[in-house]
Amino acid sequence: MNANKIPDIIIGRLPIYLRALQRMADKGVQTTSSQELGERVGISAAQIRKDISQFGEFGKQGTGYRISFLIDKLREIMKIDRIWDVAIVGAGDMGHALARYQGFVNRGFRVAMVFDNDQAKVGQQIGDFTIKDISGMIEEIQQAGVKVAMLTVPAPAAQGTAEMLVKAGVKAILNYAPISLNVPEDVRVQHIDPATHLQRMTYYL
Amino acid sequence: MNANKIPDIIIGRLPIYLRALQRMADKGVQTTSSQELGERVGISAAQIRKDISQFGEFGKQGTGYRISFLIDKLREIMKIDRIWDVAIVGAGDMGHALARYQGFVNRGFRVAMVFDNDQAKVGQQIGDFTIKDISGMIEEIQQAGVKVAMLTVPAPAAQGTAEMLVKAGVKAILNYAPISLNVPEDVRVQHIDPATHLQRMTYYL
Repeated sequence: MNANKIPDIIIGRLPIYLRALQRMADKGVQTTSSQELGERVGISAAQIRKDISQFGEFGKQGTGYRISFLIDKLREIMKIDRIWDVAIVGAGDMGHALARYQGFVNRGFRVAMVFDNDQAKVGQQIGDFTIKDISGMIEEIQQAGVKVAMLTVPAPAAQGTAEMLVKAGVKAILNYAPISLNVPEDVRVQHIDPATHLQRMTYYL
Repeated sequence: MNANKIPDIIIGRLPIYLRALQRMADKGVQTTSSQELGERVGISAAQIRKDISQFGEFGKQGTGYRISFLIDKLREIMKIDRIWDVAIVGAGDMGHALARYQGFVNRGFRVAMVFDNDQAKVGQQIGDFTIKDISGMIEEIQQAGVKVAMLTVPAPAAQGTAEMLVKAGVKAILNYAPISLNVPEDVRVQHIDPATHLQRMTYYL
């Protein structure tokens, strides 16, 4: 397996497969087929078999996939068989929502720190977190070795704040601002954007 | 063109293409190629050509795509050449963030109403909106003919609230709760989930 050779579009489908498999496991289902998985995620069985086979032989002809085994393998491939500390930058509505989000549990992530530049917010609590001053962010992230951040500052501040994160050594940024970020090639950015998700549904209306 | 024959996975890529094209247009770029577009979105040029050709011949061999034309076509295909009213259900942190989100402008959507079941919130303002009582939601959504909703209630309330939305005639639900919803086949659900987006990046770390 050579990580560099696997197209990003395939990597992007792995979390979708994992979520569907996890939901089946939660219901006590033990095995599945590429057909069944395909129906759940809206991707063809052939595509799923092809995607998964990029990483090894995880299923058997006729019996399909053992769900717990495939979950373990996918978590290993995506490197979420460990817990990544995540910094939230921007303690507005979205930062608050993320600091309290219950959906990270058992999925490879843990919010570790929350920053803002507003002195009225610094020192306040969001759930278990004390909002920290962004002026100390680069040093704190460096010291803690945090590699993952969620950027929830207003759009005009997003590029500058992303540059601070890059300086701090962050390599993966989930960007909530509706603008694109310029970052070095070794830093990944994912844009999370409700309009894109809505646009995917209106086609069918 | 037969809408039923186009795989959902292709439909899911159209908003990604549109966003990249829109950003090129914003910078004054007038034409692009499947290669250039592919580099921007991390999808192969061949895949992009294949996806777009499902809907007609929008590019020319050698000269590529005229961006404004392709944007118009994609907006037409996705039915966002109009404005869809959207209901937000759940006026917590996430509901507040969405009510104030600046990223819907020119993208086919407009927040039209915000509901909550908490009497302490009902009547309060979020930006331009007065939070309405969820007890009147089904009737209000029906009367307004709203077909699109963003569901930002806590996980335990999500299924029950989704059923109210279905009763009200909503056909597209963007689900922020970290659980899966059971809805009739003619209702689309998209799950928006930061963990899935983060998982897509850790592979590369």
